[in-house]
Amino acid sequence: MNKLAAEFIGTAVLVLIGCGAAVLGGDNIGQVGIALAFGLAIVAMAYGIGPISGCHVNPAVSLAVYLDGRMSAGEMVQYWIAQFAGALVGALILLAIAGSNANLGANGWGPGYLGEYSLVAALIFEIVFTAIFVIVILGATGQGASPGFAGLAIGLTLAAIHLVGIQVTGVSVNPARSFGPALLTGGNALAQLWLFIVAPAIGAALGALLFRLKVLKV
Amino acid sequence: MNKLAAEFIGTAVLVLIGCGAAVLGGDNIGQVGIALAFGLAIVAMAYGIGPISGCHVNPAVSLAVYLDGRMSAGEMVQYWIAQFAGALVGALILLAIAGSNANLGANGWGPGYLGEYSLVAALIFEIVFTAIFVIVILGATGQGASPGFAGLAIGLTLAAIHLVGIQVTGVSVNPARSFGPALLTGGNALAQLWLFIVAPAIGAALGALLFRLKVLKV
Amino acid sequence: MNKLAAEFIGTAVLVLIGCGAAVLGGDNIGQVGIALAFGLAIVAMAYGIGPISGCHVNPAVSLAVYLDGRMSAGEMVQYWIAQFAGALVGALILLAIAGSNANLGANGWGPGYLGEYSLVAALIFEIVFTAIFVIVILGATGQGASPGFAGLAIGLTLAAIHLVGIQVTGVSVNPARSFGPALLTGGNALAQLWLFIVAPAIGAALGALLFRLKVLKV
Amino acid sequence: MNKLAAEFIGTAVLVLIGCGAAVLGGDNIGQVGIALAFGLAIVAMAYGIGPISGCHVNPAVSLAVYLDGRMSAGEMVQYWIAQFAGALVGALILLAIAGSNANLGANGWGPGYLGEYSLVAALIFEIVFTAIFVIVILGATGQGASPGFAGLAIGLTLAAIHLVGIQVTGVSVNPARSFGPALLTGGNALAQLWLFIVAPAIGAALGALLFRLKVLKV
Repeated sequence: MNKLAAEFIGTAVLVLIGCGAAVLGGDNIGQVGIALAFGLAIVAMAYGIGPISGCHVNPAVSLAVYLDGRMSAGEMVQYWIAQFAGALVGALILLAIAGSNANLGANGWGPGYLGEYSLVAALIFEIVFTAIFVIVILGATGQGASPGFAGLAIGLTLAAIHLVGIQVTGVSVNPARSFGPALLTGGNALAQLWLFIVAPAIGAALGALLFRLKVLKV
Repeated sequence: MNKLAAEFIGTAVLVLIGCGAAVLGGDNIGQVGIALAFGLAIVAMAYGIGPISGCHVNPAVSLAVYLDGRMSAGEMVQYWIAQFAGALVGALILLAIAGSNANLGANGWGPGYLGEYSLVAALIFEIVFTAIFVIVILGATGQGASPGFAGLAIGLTLAAIHLVGIQVTGVSVNPARSFGPALLTGGNALAQLWLFIVAPAIGAALGALLFRLKVLKV
Repeated sequence: MNKLAAEFIGTAVLVLIGCGAAVLGGDNIGQVGIALAFGLAIVAMAYGIGPISGCHVNPAVSLAVYLDGRMSAGEMVQYWIAQFAGALVGALILLAIAGSNANLGANGWGPGYLGEYSLVAALIFEIVFTAIFVIVILGATGQGASPGFAGLAIGLTLAAIHLVGIQVTGVSVNPARSFGPALLTGGNALAQLWLFIVAPAIGAALGALLFRLKVLKV
Repeated sequence: MNKLAAEFIGTAVLVLIGCGAAVLGGDNIGQVGIALAFGLAIVAMAYGIGPISGCHVNPAVSLAVYLDGRMSAGEMVQYWIAQFAGALVGALILLAIAGSNANLGANGWGPGYLGEYSLVAALIFEIVFTAIFVIVILGATGQGASPGFAGLAIGLTLAAIHLVGIQVTGVSVNPARSFGPALLTGGNALAQLWLFIVAPAIGAALGALLFRLKVLKV
């Protein structure tokens, strides 16, 4: 139960800090600021709740952890529920502060969305960079890893991924982070939500397979 | 006595670096620079004076540490005095450098203050993000935590919180940090100071309760 | 074999994140964002694949490690092949997302390239800063080093080097990072590739000699 | 002898990266980029040469370490010579790349220098912030400190100090860092050099006294 509370709170915090920076601060902090906010939200939670739940705060990460054999399917599903619920509550609190549902940092692609990249570009980006994210997570918490450093490494990786891809999709690599804002925003954000569930799941599976098949092995 | 000297100096440094970056550098470093300055001031003091006093440098943090049962009420009050005094001295030194009392990085809200957010938005922001800050502090220094990493995690969390909320309240989450500049600035800053004492206190209590009630527990 | 897979993936990720940030995000994140992306890509891989291969992801680094006597010539050549192949694949994936081969973050100098620095300036910059990079790598992983910190130190060093020199050469200090984009871009980028193989090699040798000759010795 | 080589190289690198970022990249990376470059140069050297010499790379730091009783007067003077020589060589290499001696990142104050702060403001800033810098250095490497973290803490502190004070003096807190560029620039930079020797020395002494007198004591 404590693990689920931690995942619920952690995912809410990721949305509050990451999407919050985009929505409340974006015009003043730019994409570097938004990228740092997402990354440092993970650093915050990795050390704040990591000792309790491992700080997945991301259904794709839980999928990868499951596929690498470090978590049961039942626990993964429980984590998923806590993560999606947390993301929704995080988006709701953000809505209460921002005072408008015009923009909650929803992901997307195509005409009218940031760099106006194509569906294919969005798909490739989300698959490849979720795989990269998962490689760092599994590597930094696996055999031979330096104790304590995973939180910093993983958070800073997420910041780097945002530096690359905010123009492409706003960067998801996390179905829950996309779900909260999309549900409250509706419209295009909700219509495009499927990609930010499917692509991170594929990417997470690819990353996990590299470890499962011992391609990446100490 | 050494602990109080450390808290006094540490809180002065937080104001000197954080508010100093806003006042002296703000036009050139923007909100990303200001956010990093506040966060790295905590990193600086966490490793500089943390071994002596634990580096609270924030009355709301001392309240949370007290409520989580890690500090006596008497020591908390002593810490509070040192923190408020340090913040005031930090603001005075900053005033001596800046050469004007027009703006010392005071917190606020409403018409004429940065993003012109409402009182309610300011209240929600300060309560929620102080709670988040306290969760990271108690989690990163509690059971199962990685030794040594708390200073980085807590400082980077404060940077992330500033990336989100400078537009909303200038970001307090710390009554002492608000007190020093407000006392020297007077006017609106002083009239609005109450919120930056009340809201961080409520947020700190909420965060601490999650640990006290073992909702967040290893 | 696992080591080579790790180096292949790691170098691809360096190109995907570093050059990716320049190509996809550059107009919005500026040179600070690009510098952080290159640096954090190394942090990501240092903790993600470092436990497997040591995370050289750079032929100049493998040369230095070899010259310092920590790796055989045969293994160095295998690492080189994996690194060049990885950089090419990284650039290809980036091309698939960016949808154009106009600019893949290739290095260069002279008229039309960023700050339009001379060939001599480019040579000095790449030699000196590769030597600096190698000093940090060999020092942070050598005798008396703090376990676990090398990945952060080395990645943040690469970020700092980019802050200095993007205007000069776009910053290589890594023949593989230059090779991938240059091969796909052709033209000037390919014609100038030699410098980004020769200069980093010289710089790496200079840095390694300081350790080999025990000028820098604990 | 190895210690002196390390201090020589380390101080040259500080100038090459810190002043180099200002001179070569400044128009594109802004003061946030310059601040990060100075800070990350310290991170680089702390892990690169720290195991050899302790990475002072700053005569004020060596003075503080001496005053705190951790180094002999004779060794301090040797460190000073290596540091000043290194800073000069760093500035010379920078000059060779930049191709002009118009601006090498020299410190200053008054009309025509950045924020045009007064001599008194410059003096207060350099004294107070060198004291803060020294508190972090002595605290992070003293009793009760977390092993390995000092390099990150000290480097990030220097970044924070730059975020505050580039407008005021360009930020010295390090006589050697001021000496190299001033000697090659001449004019006002050389005429104002005295302040960047005197004020950091006073600040370092103040910081060290807090430890020596056990005001700051674990």
